[in-house]
Amino acid sequence: MGVRVNFENNLEELKSKITEMAELSVVALERAFTALKTQDVEIALKVIEGDTAIDNLEMDINQFAIWLMAKEAPVSRDLREIIGVLKISSEIERVADFAVNIAKATIKIGNTTSLLEITHLEKMKEISIEMLRKALQSFLEENILFAKEVGDLEEEVDQYSGETYKKLTAYLSEHPEETNQLVQLLFVNRFLERTADHITNIAESTAYLIKGQIYDFNS
Amino acid sequence: MGVRVNFENNLEELKSKITEMAELSVVALERAFTALKTQDVEIALKVIEGDTAIDNLEMDINQFAIWLMAKEAPVSRDLREIIGVLKISSEIERVADFAVNIAKATIKIGNTTSLLEITHLEKMKEISIEMLRKALQSFLEENILFAKEVGDLEEEVDQYSGETYKKLTAYLSEHPEETNQLVQLLFVNRFLERTADHITNIAESTAYLIKGQIYDFNS
Repeated sequence: MGVRVNFENNLEELKSKITEMAELSVVALERAFTALKTQDVEIALKVIEGDTAIDNLEMDINQFAIWLMAKEAPVSRDLREIIGVLKISSEIERVADFAVNIAKATIKIGNTTSLLEITHLEKMKEISIEMLRKALQSFLEENILFAKEVGDLEEEVDQYSGETYKKLTAYLSEHPEETNQLVQLLFVNRFLERTADHITNIAESTAYLIKGQIYDFNS
Repeated sequence: MGVRVNFENNLEELKSKITEMAELSVVALERAFTALKTQDVEIALKVIEGDTAIDNLEMDINQFAIWLMAKEAPVSRDLREIIGVLKISSEIERVADFAVNIAKATIKIGNTTSLLEITHLEKMKEISIEMLRKALQSFLEENILFAKEVGDLEEEVDQYSGETYKKLTAYLSEHPEETNQLVQLLFVNRFLERTADHITNIAESTAYLIKGQIYDFNS
């Protein structure tokens, strides 16, 4: 097998590991949100336990990428691609961490009447998952349009996050007896806003990969 | 100049850039806290502006490290060292981000009677800075004892953070008129707890570098 073919195969394997990581993270986000919505501590605990698999996958990817760099000493585009894989895997790992944070907030909220309906958190979660799917597709298909769409969706999440902050703090000043739940929902609001930020970073890394030029879709 | 001497010189340059980044981050944390304490929006804005220099330094370090990997194709310990530099610079960058987050919280709190004295936030900030200095020293001097001390200090920060959370939420349920400030202080509490986590990651990367074995000082 030629050196080139070999390198491409290794890169494909890295990409399939990234895809697996992203899929596990989508599952973690969905589950964490289900736990929050139904106040199901069992599901929350499963999200926390499941994070080890995602962390291990990231370590796998890192080691594979480092081995590939050491072996092939790639330059220009090939090097950019491997660095891109490293960056994207670390961003996905952070998205999965936010799912864990949401699960932990769920456990802290415990069993009480949910105030989720006064927030936009569910919409924010849905848009974030759409963003992650688009960012991944953009990376796999080297499609810059999808990367730009991710940037647009992030603005929506920011908007919803700002509104949710206002609603939760207004409710809080009138219902101090709900402090615990409301503070945790304020944290979840922040986690989802940050999730969207990190997914936007994936799109930016992808755009850099495609165009060899740095983008800032956050601004 | 021999290849080996050359490599060592490049590594030294990377280390001096890491030191510079860490020093800038300590300044950012100190300043952000001064801004919070004195409710000085001007200083808060300076922290936010100053973050670009830290981000640029991280990019510098990344590019230098990648160039060095491409040029020398280092193996075993040399490779571990460069990967360590990349990890540590990304953790320092996150510490600096938390300084920015504290500065932003300061701006949101605005001009009102400070409730900082009901928290342990100042102690947490002081311990975090001590941790960062120790983690850096551990890395530069390859001293595993300092790395372990960082892990111990993180437990103190965790303890203070738990107590601060309780105090702030208890105060909040009795003073709903202070919701805005108290919610922002709850965020700052979380930022400092996360700052300590990331500094602990630096110590863990350093321990891995020294011993070639993975540590978890967080548990």
